Amino acid sequence: MLPVEEALEKVLALVEPLGTERVGLRHALGRVMAEPATAQLTQPPFSGSAMDGYWIDVADHLPGATLTVEGEAAAGRAYDGTPTPGQAVRIFTGAPVPGPNGVVVLQENVTREGDTITLPQELETHNNIRPKGQDFAQGGSFCPDRPLTARDLGLLAAMNVAAVTVRSRPIVAIIATGDELVMPGEEPGPDQIICSNSFIVAALAERMGAEVRMLPIARDDRDSLRTVFDLAKGADLVVTSGGASVGAHDLVGEVAAELGLDRSFWKIAMRPGKPLMAGRMGDAAMLGLPGNPVSATVCAELFLRPMLRKLSGLPPESRVQQAILATDTGPTGPRTHYMRATLAPGDPLPRVTPFDNQDSAMLSILSQADCLLIRPLGDGPRKAGETVEILPLD
Amino acid sequence: MLPVEEALEKVLALVEPLGTERVGLRHALGRVMAEPATAQLTQPPFSGSAMDGYWIDVADHLPGATLTVEGEAAAGRAYDGTPTPGQAVRIFTGAPVPGPNGVVVLQENVTREGDTITLPQELETHNNIRPKGQDFAQGGSFCPDRPLTARDLGLLAAMNVAAVTVRSRPIVAIIATGDELVMPGEEPGPDQIICSNSFIVAALAERMGAEVRMLPIARDDRDSLRTVFDLAKGADLVVTSGGASVGAHDLVGEVAAELGLDRSFWKIAMRPGKPLMAGRMGDAAMLGLPGNPVSATVCAELFLRPMLRKLSGLPPESRVQQAILATDTGPTGPRTHYMRATLAPGDPLPRVTPFDNQDSAMLSILSQADCLLIRPLGDGPRKAGETVEILPLD
Repeated sequence: MLPVEEALEKVLALVEPLGTERVGLRHALGRVMAEPATAQLTQPPFSGSAMDGYWIDVADHLPGATLTVEGEAAAGRAYDGTPTPGQAVRIFTGAPVPGPNGVVVLQENVTREGDTITLPQELETHNNIRPKGQDFAQGGSFCPDRPLTARDLGLLAAMNVAAVTVRSRPIVAIIATGDELVMPGEEPGPDQIICSNSFIVAALAERMGAEVRMLPIARDDRDSLRTVFDLAKGADLVVTSGGASVGAHDLVGEVAAELGLDRSFWKIAMRPGKPLMAGRMGDAAMLGLPGNPVSATVCAELFLRPMLRKLSGLPPESRVQQAILATDTGPTGPRTHYMRATLAPGDPLPRVTPFDNQDSAMLSILSQADCLLIRPLGDGPRKAGETVEILPLD
Repeated sequence: MLPVEEALEKVLALVEPLGTERVGLRHALGRVMAEPATAQLTQPPFSGSAMDGYWIDVADHLPGATLTVEGEAAAGRAYDGTPTPGQAVRIFTGAPVPGPNGVVVLQENVTREGDTITLPQELETHNNIRPKGQDFAQGGSFCPDRPLTARDLGLLAAMNVAAVTVRSRPIVAIIATGDELVMPGEEPGPDQIICSNSFIVAALAERMGAEVRMLPIARDDRDSLRTVFDLAKGADLVVTSGGASVGAHDLVGEVAAELGLDRSFWKIAMRPGKPLMAGRMGDAAMLGLPGNPVSATVCAELFLRPMLRKLSGLPPESRVQQAILATDTGPTGPRTHYMRATLAPGDPLPRVTPFDNQDSAMLSILSQADCLLIRPLGDGPRKAGETVEILPLD
């Protein structure tokens, strides 16, 4: 059986970052920049006052000094004179400062009588001036290696960048396979169940920024599989799920091989979700998830998510966190066990409780879970209070 | 000055959960259910084997017992006989069990010779049977009070629920005000800056599931404000930003009052982001954010986000987390200070470092921040190593 880490390396080798496209800022949330954006201006464009007060030359900034107020500067209305020693300029937040070596003394710290101000005995050390270009300078570049946040969009806007070059969104074709499946809203026959995998995988992929094509269910015969694989053409990643048995997996694999799949089929040392198929098929990568929805979800978290990150041009992420085990738990076998679990607030770490029922058929428990408790393969029993690792689910 | 908690109560009193609509499962990710969904079937529909092995009656489940293999049950192919004492049925994962009080003995735990199997001396305690309805029963309901996850959609699909009743998405009209603003891509005049607030607020609202109408910039005159407010009609929430000064805020407030705004205007004991305007205007709630983009972002995190949660039918959330201060920091004044800060991994808690420069004009620092370090009003200086509270930014 292949360790999870090795399987991850192998699936990541199947994909490379996608090409790029230009999008306007209103469509750039969550996208990944592929080329730096260049600031079109300097911010602040001039050195300005950060407070309401009085601008004076630094040479006059002495305890108890008295100065004459010569003029006024407000936001959008600069003082157009040149203050001489002993002169002060009434200044408001956002106004350009009237000289190069000045200090803004806060209005509440001076005593004003007529046009004369007196500085306090105890002077501030801060000059209360926002220097030109302290936020960014024209020509400066911005290219974070993470999905763009709302705040990044604010910065780009302020840089007068109206559009950015981002990685194209991965196109993911999703194919559920199996004679036993019908879609929600249909009437299942006596031996049939409702297709749920595709909805989970589609939503996970969309949350990762992918564009999803949810294809019709492929039946367990070659013609149906060929027809549906044909519909997947043009996708960057084809994700199949289905076949609880190796036999059913093989049929998908054989038809995919006819269509050019350079296939690997692994039994991965993980629980749930042992079988995984992966390869390259023409211009697309292919990932074959187990048919069991809980296994498919765990495999999607562990393998599909990193593949989508790489396609999107993002660096690998470590999502593992620490938590305190809230209950004793037994030893693991020869596979890493991803136990469905809930988290509760704790001090300092959250407390994690695995569900008693770890049956991989339980969608209700999968839905209630906040995280996967990671039990390394060959790990002994663990006591309540020990620190363990978890993978949060979102 | 109004404490943050009181201001939050006041803005939350302005909104109520929205009406409902039906959406198909493919469009339900992140939506909030407003009516329970009802399971249309029972899962599993029958008690079935969880493993490959042999089904025997519990009365025959004795150490070293020998039994005769009478028939076979596979997924989709039930055994149609009725086993009698001493008889076993070869059974595969997913097959219905042939009787009510049975045990599935794993195939690797029995010795088979011809049609005879011998049980081991040490018996398993688990019966390896998935009881009928253990996941959910027909008629059972599902209505989590959180945005629907990918896994929830899987559960709903398995329940044969094709569409769900969810809260309508809040329609948020965003209005930036100010003569000093131009849109990204335009050429700013000498005293002008690029409008960035609207992009931040729009992205935050969209991330919370809102539908955003980004309206034209309103100039600092009554006609322009009236025209743009008119375009906001039909929105559930009108968010304005702009006017660094109380004067500019008043113009927005006066025009909004003419249009029926029942206005409150508060100075909130927070830093950055002191002034906030809020009220009801016809069928909409109105929130007036400060013009400074950093202040607007912090106010949007603290006030807009909870308003959108309530409109969406979600309960209040506590997003505050603990972290260890990585550096000494000074006392706070009479306002709660939300310091822009970075997080680094730590054991057991992450380490938080506030930026040296807390200038509320710095969009580059806002973009780099991972969280807001919450310094309560009147708090004394804090030493590196102390536990503090943070609000993560996303």
